[in-house]
Amino acid sequence: MSGENEISKIDKNFTHVTSDGELLFYDVNKAPFRVYGLLWEDGTGFTRMPSDIAGKVSDGVFTLAKNTAGGRVRFSTDSSVIAVRCRIPQSWRMAHMTDAGSAGFDLYNYSEGKQRFVGAFIPQRANTPEYELTLKLATSEMRDFVLDMPLFSSLSSLEIGLQKGSALNCGSEYKHKKPIVFYGSSITHGACASRPGLCYEAIISRRLDTDFVNLGFSGGAKGEDTVMTYIAGLDMSMFVYDYDYNAPSAEHLMATHYKGYRKVRDSHPDIPIIMASSPNFSNPARDGKARRDVIAATYEKALSEGDKNVYFVDGEKEFATFFDDGRTVDGTHPNDVGFEIMAKAFGDIAEKLIK
Amino acid sequence: MSGENEISKIDKNFTHVTSDGELLFYDVNKAPFRVYGLLWEDGTGFTRMPSDIAGKVSDGVFTLAKNTAGGRVRFSTDSSVIAVRCRIPQSWRMAHMTDAGSAGFDLYNYSEGKQRFVGAFIPQRANTPEYELTLKLATSEMRDFVLDMPLFSSLSSLEIGLQKGSALNCGSEYKHKKPIVFYGSSITHGACASRPGLCYEAIISRRLDTDFVNLGFSGGAKGEDTVMTYIAGLDMSMFVYDYDYNAPSAEHLMATHYKGYRKVRDSHPDIPIIMASSPNFSNPARDGKARRDVIAATYEKALSEGDKNVYFVDGEKEFATFFDDGRTVDGTHPNDVGFEIMAKAFGDIAEKLIK
Repeated sequence: MSGENEISKIDKNFTHVTSDGELLFYDVNKAPFRVYGLLWEDGTGFTRMPSDIAGKVSDGVFTLAKNTAGGRVRFSTDSSVIAVRCRIPQSWRMAHMTDAGSAGFDLYNYSEGKQRFVGAFIPQRANTPEYELTLKLATSEMRDFVLDMPLFSSLSSLEIGLQKGSALNCGSEYKHKKPIVFYGSSITHGACASRPGLCYEAIISRRLDTDFVNLGFSGGAKGEDTVMTYIAGLDMSMFVYDYDYNAPSAEHLMATHYKGYRKVRDSHPDIPIIMASSPNFSNPARDGKARRDVIAATYEKALSEGDKNVYFVDGEKEFATFFDDGRTVDGTHPNDVGFEIMAKAFGDIAEKLIK
Repeated sequence: MSGENEISKIDKNFTHVTSDGELLFYDVNKAPFRVYGLLWEDGTGFTRMPSDIAGKVSDGVFTLAKNTAGGRVRFSTDSSVIAVRCRIPQSWRMAHMTDAGSAGFDLYNYSEGKQRFVGAFIPQRANTPEYELTLKLATSEMRDFVLDMPLFSSLSSLEIGLQKGSALNCGSEYKHKKPIVFYGSSITHGACASRPGLCYEAIISRRLDTDFVNLGFSGGAKGEDTVMTYIAGLDMSMFVYDYDYNAPSAEHLMATHYKGYRKVRDSHPDIPIIMASSPNFSNPARDGKARRDVIAATYEKALSEGDKNVYFVDGEKEFATFFDDGRTVDGTHPNDVGFEIMAKAFGDIAEKLIK
């Protein structure tokens, strides 16, 4: 369409700032930076699951595991300019999601136990396959930052740019160092948060000051043995088990859901396990009740077997009007209001359980 | 970037439905449809302000007045398929906003005093300059609908497609037929709601069952005499006066804000006038306090002159942590959470005043 991306000509609030060349760039894979939520694989870049394992799950998971959803960098600096420079070999740009969410970064500041939004790094659609963006801060005192990485893009390199002469340290760690692991569909993956910091896991992470791992795989979360065995082997503080939406049917859920729960519980006798049915319960286009009933049955069975640390976020109770009230962008994926509601439902439980 | 718009290959929830050819299409400018919030100009299409007046305000307002922000179509039908077919001569597709919001449509259903989200019509980026999209509904009883039009696109034609043999009527009117008129910046215009139905005016319209006119002009709302004279001449139930963000400076606001208020009040001695300062009060990149003080001064002066129907949505009080809490997509424009907060602040006042 004509006029695309040119609105900054008539509204300067749409203008994006670029670097003035007075910055030094640092690879986030080297100290003092700390990368959370991702592994680094030489030759390909970041991944959420080792490629050899992801490849055994499905082609979709193999591709999507390289999307940096849930990836974060923590550091501290007194620089009043912060830039990101990255190489993006693959990116999903979608009509119902902002490019800010799919391919951008968010910066939050941590101080005195509170997290504040600082700004977003938003690539223009034409920025391919590499871009550099800069944020100018209002002041320059030493502060802790967390940078949230793109939800639906892959990164083969990521550098942070700071003013020459500014300090750079690792900053504080999370209060809760063991991650909460989230497994699920495109919703868990982050579709359609307007920014990376607004998917429900990131909101919970800021609220509880906890690390997390986002194992949401758009269209690819089917509770396969390979992925559940991988998850069962992770060190974690808590597990959120939420793949209702991607299971091909209620029958498929029946064949896999309890089995996957059992695998994680057998490896982790003591961690809280939160299972969930889809937030989009009332959507007339899906069989929300049949699916919810399968998940409820796993929960009831776990309780009857004596599991004292299992919880259920029931779509029918928590999110009954989610669809009718327009909490989605497209009838399926939460908008930012939907994610805030989800973050509250999961976060209220997690807050009571986290140690 | 590679992979753009292809995620539906691995996640069927991203697939878009197209028409099956069994539909009849109707021009929304003919009965029984009712178009709200827009004027029709032969030869060019919809506009929010007559082109000859918009052209006298500024080039930006001339262009943006043709964006269909706030445009709606109401009708009733028992068709279980509803399609839109439109021609879009101009569209702003932006990195911090979804294409669903900038170029898509939303469908809401009105029944028993309640409005429910039905679904979104979301064009792919490649849909230029004409597209047709279809929603399949779960049932086919006679129902009232409202279709919200794109926020940042212009439409030179719009047709609605229904199944052959289905009924088509005008449906119910708004309970409050006189519109609330909103004047302001890109935020009023709707940046960056994820869907047309989620800008703050549309949320208030559904809550109060009232018509409205969106006179938000991204980057172009400067309180010029021409635009304020035009607004003063409109028939309306209430006026929301909110152009803080686009005024070039606090001094410019000082020179124009009270003057514009006076113009509207002189034409409308009895309507409620709600003035507002920007929701983005605490953003360190702007002089929020100086601007707010000018608007507060207009409000105080109006009160001291005996105006008993003037109200102030004070950014410092209502939205003090809006920026820090990340209620924006980009540090400037509200995300869906931000718009919900704005809709509540303005809606709570409007609900008490609307007649």
